[in-house]
Amino acid sequence: MKKLINAVEDVVAESVEGFAWAHADIVEMRTDPLFVVRRGGAREGKVGLVSGGGSGHEPLHAGFVGLGMLDAAVPGTVFTSPTPDHVLPALAAADSGRGVLAIVKNYTGDVLNFETAIELADADGIEVATVVVDDDVAVKDSLYTAGRRGVAGTLAVEKIAGAAAERGDDLQAVAATAARVVANVRSMGVALTACTVPHVGRPSFDLPDDEVEIGIGIHGEPGRRRIPVAPADDITAMLVEPVVEDLALTSGESVLLFVNGMGGTPLSELYVVYRQARRLLEDRGVVVARSLVGNYVTSLDMQGASVTVLRLDDELTALWDAPVHTAALRW
Amino acid sequence: MKKLINAVEDVVAESVEGFAWAHADIVEMRTDPLFVVRRGGAREGKVGLVSGGGSGHEPLHAGFVGLGMLDAAVPGTVFTSPTPDHVLPALAAADSGRGVLAIVKNYTGDVLNFETAIELADADGIEVATVVVDDDVAVKDSLYTAGRRGVAGTLAVEKIAGAAAERGDDLQAVAATAARVVANVRSMGVALTACTVPHVGRPSFDLPDDEVEIGIGIHGEPGRRRIPVAPADDITAMLVEPVVEDLALTSGESVLLFVNGMGGTPLSELYVVYRQARRLLEDRGVVVARSLVGNYVTSLDMQGASVTVLRLDDELTALWDAPVHTAALRW
Repeated sequence: MKKLINAVEDVVAESVEGFAWAHADIVEMRTDPLFVVRRGGAREGKVGLVSGGGSGHEPLHAGFVGLGMLDAAVPGTVFTSPTPDHVLPALAAADSGRGVLAIVKNYTGDVLNFETAIELADADGIEVATVVVDDDVAVKDSLYTAGRRGVAGTLAVEKIAGAAAERGDDLQAVAATAARVVANVRSMGVALTACTVPHVGRPSFDLPDDEVEIGIGIHGEPGRRRIPVAPADDITAMLVEPVVEDLALTSGESVLLFVNGMGGTPLSELYVVYRQARRLLEDRGVVVARSLVGNYVTSLDMQGASVTVLRLDDELTALWDAPVHTAALRW
Repeated sequence: MKKLINAVEDVVAESVEGFAWAHADIVEMRTDPLFVVRRGGAREGKVGLVSGGGSGHEPLHAGFVGLGMLDAAVPGTVFTSPTPDHVLPALAAADSGRGVLAIVKNYTGDVLNFETAIELADADGIEVATVVVDDDVAVKDSLYTAGRRGVAGTLAVEKIAGAAAERGDDLQAVAATAARVVANVRSMGVALTACTVPHVGRPSFDLPDDEVEIGIGIHGEPGRRRIPVAPADDITAMLVEPVVEDLALTSGESVLLFVNGMGGTPLSELYVVYRQARRLLEDRGVVVARSLVGNYVTSLDMQGASVTVLRLDDELTALWDAPVHTAALRW
């Protein structure tokens, strides 16, 4: 294993410390337990937004803390959910009295740990609503999940719910907006290579030199099938079709098209995927009204990409367009 | 070779087309020859900025076209300089009558091709000044270069000269500011793995599983030496020390610290490098006044990172802070 790390047990703490130093104008780091909070803490009069989960998906979630997105992010160890006693202080730090929305990716550990943390928060008088993101159309009931997995669509939930909170919506309204994003966002990914978890020290699965895996999860969970290496346009079609089918997209509808890199794939290749995904959508009469391309919801050093499509309406578009100022996303 | 591409000869054109579609609010693509120009073309009354070079370093340079940075970017084929007839129309497209600054990384092919293009532009009545970026302290007179190589420091030159142009400085002043950045910026990189050029189809050099190469170039040119895999803090010290020595940084000075990924390295590892680089600078009494961390000047899928330090003064800091709105950098 070759990585730019020191002792494997220090990876998350050192990376988060570097992150907090580099973005001290936006975030603060808290320790014991470790989490990241918007600089200056919870904003008076604003619903708080908290997300978290296992590390290894950077910039998700800490990179999305800041104006118009999250108030706090809780990083677990690599690919391992943070425990309830770890989540609770982040919920408390994000609460200004108007309640907190917890955004949870649908993995068994995350769901259970957030549930317990939310019960504890409730006992402390913090009102918490939850939205569970399950946008991955590839598989149901996989290695880590009952139901569908939460993947890159989480970014859209955090961005749009964050904008709703920033404009002053109450907790019920922010949660309803988040749920509306979840209902309208779908993703599917492909892996060219496996990722290497630092404390494991070797690739998390074997993928032959001449094969790719369609429908991969962001922890390297099995996808739908392995196929011989194929042109990007063909692979992209295998990602776009199931997403479009599952969303039941029809001609004339507007979408956000988000092509996400898994961490080890160059940006130039993501634009090749974007190009074909856009052509396939436009061939169906779907209007690509908004776009995002980059490594945002990653899987350590995995080479691969995912395609996320969010059905837009005027309100979701306006919330997507609303100002955001975080380490990883800003406009 | 596993990449998300179609035919190797179409890689650059398809990637640039996807890029231009995704960022149609910021850029326009021109074809025959292929280049990217700021949406709406040259800005009346503003000095134009043009850069370019071989592809494979994305988001450099096209990702930096937009308000406060470049007016046009010329992508060659992968790791190959664009020819003069390819550069000339980009120079013309960036000129509003106040002249154009060409920002050229110091590689023999780029320098020669830009020189010839600039002679042709001169014959067409376009005034062009040139700044050659040679920030890499690792080696002199390498495989592709007489003198030092131009690497990640190019981003700082483009950002700061772009801000000077945007505020209305004349060509001589913009060129002088760019030269001042070049005089005060230094970089050094490390590779954990080689990159694979699409039309070659295999890694561009052999790097054993237990070694890293210190002082690597952004095309995989040889560095200073190979060492056994070491902790990130030790490797970072091997990058920071030569940079600091070469800049002759002294206690009390302020700098921009830019940790750049080579394309295949996860963001989490770049923050581990940033953390140690910052500590080493602060140990010397150097003030890290500004920071940037991410994959900006890459080498296809290479795993590795570089450390860039720019000595700041009040004016360079103000120009760094000035608004920028491009695909890859915005604030």
